[in-house]
Amino acid sequence: MRTKMVKNAVGRMVPAEINSIPQTPFMGVGKYKPDGLKATSPIRSCSDYPMDGNKVVQSLKDVLQKAGIRNGMTISSHHHFRNGDLVMNQVFDMCHELGVRGLRWFPSATFPCHAHIIDHMKNGTVDLVEGSLNGDIGRFVSYGNMRKTGILRSHGGRWQAVQDGEVHIDIAIIAAPTADTFGNATGDRGPSACGSLGFALVDSLYADKVIVVTDNLVPFPCIPWQIQGQNVDHVVVVDKIGEPDKIVAGTTAITFSKERLGIAEMTAKFVQAAGIIKEGFSFQAGAGGISLAFAKYVKEMMKDAGVKARFIRGGSTKQLVEMLEEGLTDYILDGQTFDLEGVRSMMDNSGHVSTSPFTSYNWHGKGNFASQVDMVVLGATEVDVNFNANVVTHSDGLLLHGIGGWQNCLFSKCTILAIPSIRKNNPIIVDDVTTLVGPGELIDVVVTERGIAINPLRDDLIKATKNSDLPIRGINIIKSEIDELIETPAPKPNLSDKVISAVKWVDGTLIDSIYKMAR
Amino acid sequence: MRTKMVKNAVGRMVPAEINSIPQTPFMGVGKYKPDGLKATSPIRSCSDYPMDGNKVVQSLKDVLQKAGIRNGMTISSHHHFRNGDLVMNQVFDMCHELGVRGLRWFPSATFPCHAHIIDHMKNGTVDLVEGSLNGDIGRFVSYGNMRKTGILRSHGGRWQAVQDGEVHIDIAIIAAPTADTFGNATGDRGPSACGSLGFALVDSLYADKVIVVTDNLVPFPCIPWQIQGQNVDHVVVVDKIGEPDKIVAGTTAITFSKERLGIAEMTAKFVQAAGIIKEGFSFQAGAGGISLAFAKYVKEMMKDAGVKARFIRGGSTKQLVEMLEEGLTDYILDGQTFDLEGVRSMMDNSGHVSTSPFTSYNWHGKGNFASQVDMVVLGATEVDVNFNANVVTHSDGLLLHGIGGWQNCLFSKCTILAIPSIRKNNPIIVDDVTTLVGPGELIDVVVTERGIAINPLRDDLIKATKNSDLPIRGINIIKSEIDELIETPAPKPNLSDKVISAVKWVDGTLIDSIYKMAR
Repeated sequence: MRTKMVKNAVGRMVPAEINSIPQTPFMGVGKYKPDGLKATSPIRSCSDYPMDGNKVVQSLKDVLQKAGIRNGMTISSHHHFRNGDLVMNQVFDMCHELGVRGLRWFPSATFPCHAHIIDHMKNGTVDLVEGSLNGDIGRFVSYGNMRKTGILRSHGGRWQAVQDGEVHIDIAIIAAPTADTFGNATGDRGPSACGSLGFALVDSLYADKVIVVTDNLVPFPCIPWQIQGQNVDHVVVVDKIGEPDKIVAGTTAITFSKERLGIAEMTAKFVQAAGIIKEGFSFQAGAGGISLAFAKYVKEMMKDAGVKARFIRGGSTKQLVEMLEEGLTDYILDGQTFDLEGVRSMMDNSGHVSTSPFTSYNWHGKGNFASQVDMVVLGATEVDVNFNANVVTHSDGLLLHGIGGWQNCLFSKCTILAIPSIRKNNPIIVDDVTTLVGPGELIDVVVTERGIAINPLRDDLIKATKNSDLPIRGINIIKSEIDELIETPAPKPNLSDKVISAVKWVDGTLIDSIYKMAR
Repeated sequence: MRTKMVKNAVGRMVPAEINSIPQTPFMGVGKYKPDGLKATSPIRSCSDYPMDGNKVVQSLKDVLQKAGIRNGMTISSHHHFRNGDLVMNQVFDMCHELGVRGLRWFPSATFPCHAHIIDHMKNGTVDLVEGSLNGDIGRFVSYGNMRKTGILRSHGGRWQAVQDGEVHIDIAIIAAPTADTFGNATGDRGPSACGSLGFALVDSLYADKVIVVTDNLVPFPCIPWQIQGQNVDHVVVVDKIGEPDKIVAGTTAITFSKERLGIAEMTAKFVQAAGIIKEGFSFQAGAGGISLAFAKYVKEMMKDAGVKARFIRGGSTKQLVEMLEEGLTDYILDGQTFDLEGVRSMMDNSGHVSTSPFTSYNWHGKGNFASQVDMVVLGATEVDVNFNANVVTHSDGLLLHGIGGWQNCLFSKCTILAIPSIRKNNPIIVDDVTTLVGPGELIDVVVTERGIAINPLRDDLIKATKNSDLPIRGINIIKSEIDELIETPAPKPNLSDKVISAVKWVDGTLIDSIYKMAR
């Protein structure tokens, strides 16, 4: 039976229910008003936990059994090791060995290192990966091979979903670079240090059973306690939880492309012309090549102008750490460390502050930090002439990326997509994005190598930069130019009408659907 | 109509209900198994909070109205300023001015500076103070003058009560020495710095409306954020929130009494003889005169033995700070700073860690820190021959003290009461304590100037110290000696059968009742 589809406020068709759970279609930015109460959890008693505080269990197998692993459960994990995670493949191998079936894996993100879990998706150990579906897993799902329908959420949306009771975690697996026997844990030190453990915080607060897996047990108390032992059921010690040098894999190298450096420089000149770079300002720039180059240009501008930032939002990188250590910012507010210098700095610098998706991104709180950031520079796979953008599917329709903090960051005071106008022979500015992940009203500026398009909603930015010598142009004009340039555009994606995953907005409503490749 | 009374597991009569809410009698240590779910709170949305993060409201009056103050509400506050709080008297003056009646005040503790609120208890603004009833307020309540029945809880019990939904806070008032406009707040810096804000943490998590009151607004972000702005509704700036020099008032001066110094020294010799002072050990000593002197003796012993503690649990004092700064301990785990050196150290030393009653004391969590402490030295107003002890009423029956962390600390591996055997002409070792606050099975040792009594349950301590030259004696023998010495014992308290307050155990059950003075 086909799922009933409904049209949402941005004209996209979304399923009325997913995996038998009724869904709410996107109603517009800020329009959906949640009611009801946050999720809660059973009241525990110290009399059921060891009085000496020692919660160590001998092996991964023992601990899964002790935590009551059984068919159909939801197992969560964090992605602070990015492509260097050594725990989750083992966990699902063990679940398979124990004969457990139909699990939902609820990671904060998947990475290429998790391609191994495709075997468990085939053999029925894992029915559903509800989290970002990158690379090989994304491709596998795109061709309709996952038993259940996926749900993509932003980092803030993941917190919201757990907090609001939309996703109940049965067992949380928290790989922790340093921990004590009581379960206090931190990511900022130890042989496998990965920096923050912020993505795992919500899991530790709401999961029925919380398991800390560490390769570096220290005497109580483990300080800092990014994860608090009072939320932890069991601790297990293994040989090695992760390969920190693989944290940098993926998106965290500065670009060497002359074209992309040009985009980065133009973006920096734009924010300078718009008057954003001033004493006490703030910004966020991701770990993509253009963003990293952008930060480098901004750094020079700040030095020239003698200006200091109040805070920079990370994903932290070597570059941001240099800015902190050179006194160019008071703080890095960091959700995940993108390289080993970030890891070192989080331990060394009191101004390098670990954050969680609660502080940064959760839309269902009493405010969050994202809307207080003066500007953010992001990437996108596509953007349309109304500034709606895509960050999860490629122009060929394949689901290859997670959302990360991207949707959450759109609430910054000036949101800029800094992107090349053409990739291979795909136009990146299009009439209609393959998947609508970010509503155009929140995207203020698109910077390409062919010029800068400002969202007509942002009169203030248009005025502020009018007399600059920057190539500010209409988005339709840039689009026409691209369309003329591409002689043989890539074919439209060949998609079936079967939904293989849905994309949630930050408030838990459905903003778009992702369809199965028709091959 | 008299309340129905029931007998609990330690033979004490306790009310079957208090203020119309059914109660559970104490069942024995670790016996009560909670069921049900933790309290929860409504799901909020960022769309209802200012996108620029500025939550500042002009005045205390405005903020109370904005928070929807009305008759019968529960208003909470913290006591980190101890006797220097300048906020709560103003809050209740304002409530009175607004014509609000029948409020429940739910402080983490009251101090002499709050005697002003007695007027509001008389005029009907405040019906109930549910928290420690010290000094003048305690005396007022002892004579039956509070409209409703009080409930005394330990610091951990206060967290448990809010977490378990036993007490719902409508409006939390958090006096914060430093805050930003978003509501991030810290106690460790600013002109009115008071150290930790740990007692207010549970209020910030569970209250319907959270108001941060500060006299030191800093640009976002306020780091550290002991209180997170994502839990805060409003911020209000006033001239002065507290007088930090009055933090030291009350219990925080070392004793000069020769007798008490002797008790402190004997206690230190006991723990040394018992083999507790060894590399990596831990202890907690309160801020009473004997405890402070005890810590001084232990410090010397540690130096002589070349031994370093892993952690010391605070209330921090100048003395503990010296130990940290001299390298005699890795950490101070601090719930409240007892003097200004403690305040300074919390800001200066990364090893001086702010804790909350959740980490330290909450019995309804997955363990807590209290049971991991090697030894704790506490005071008491009375102890009986079965080691049951009292910390809230005097021998004359007056309710003059809160429980503080006292009950929670009893779970340490070696709990010592270090007390004089006679106060005025009251015997302190008695057949029956006026109020039973701590069950004897958790009290391991009583040290008086007349010798040391070890609880017969603690074979290990008896054996370990058998060959020492310490005056280890039976508690009955010490008692007889005292009884002989006191020629004219003070009369028994003259109490009516009306319950004016009940005492909760750490698990939320009722361990004893406090009765109205018969005059």
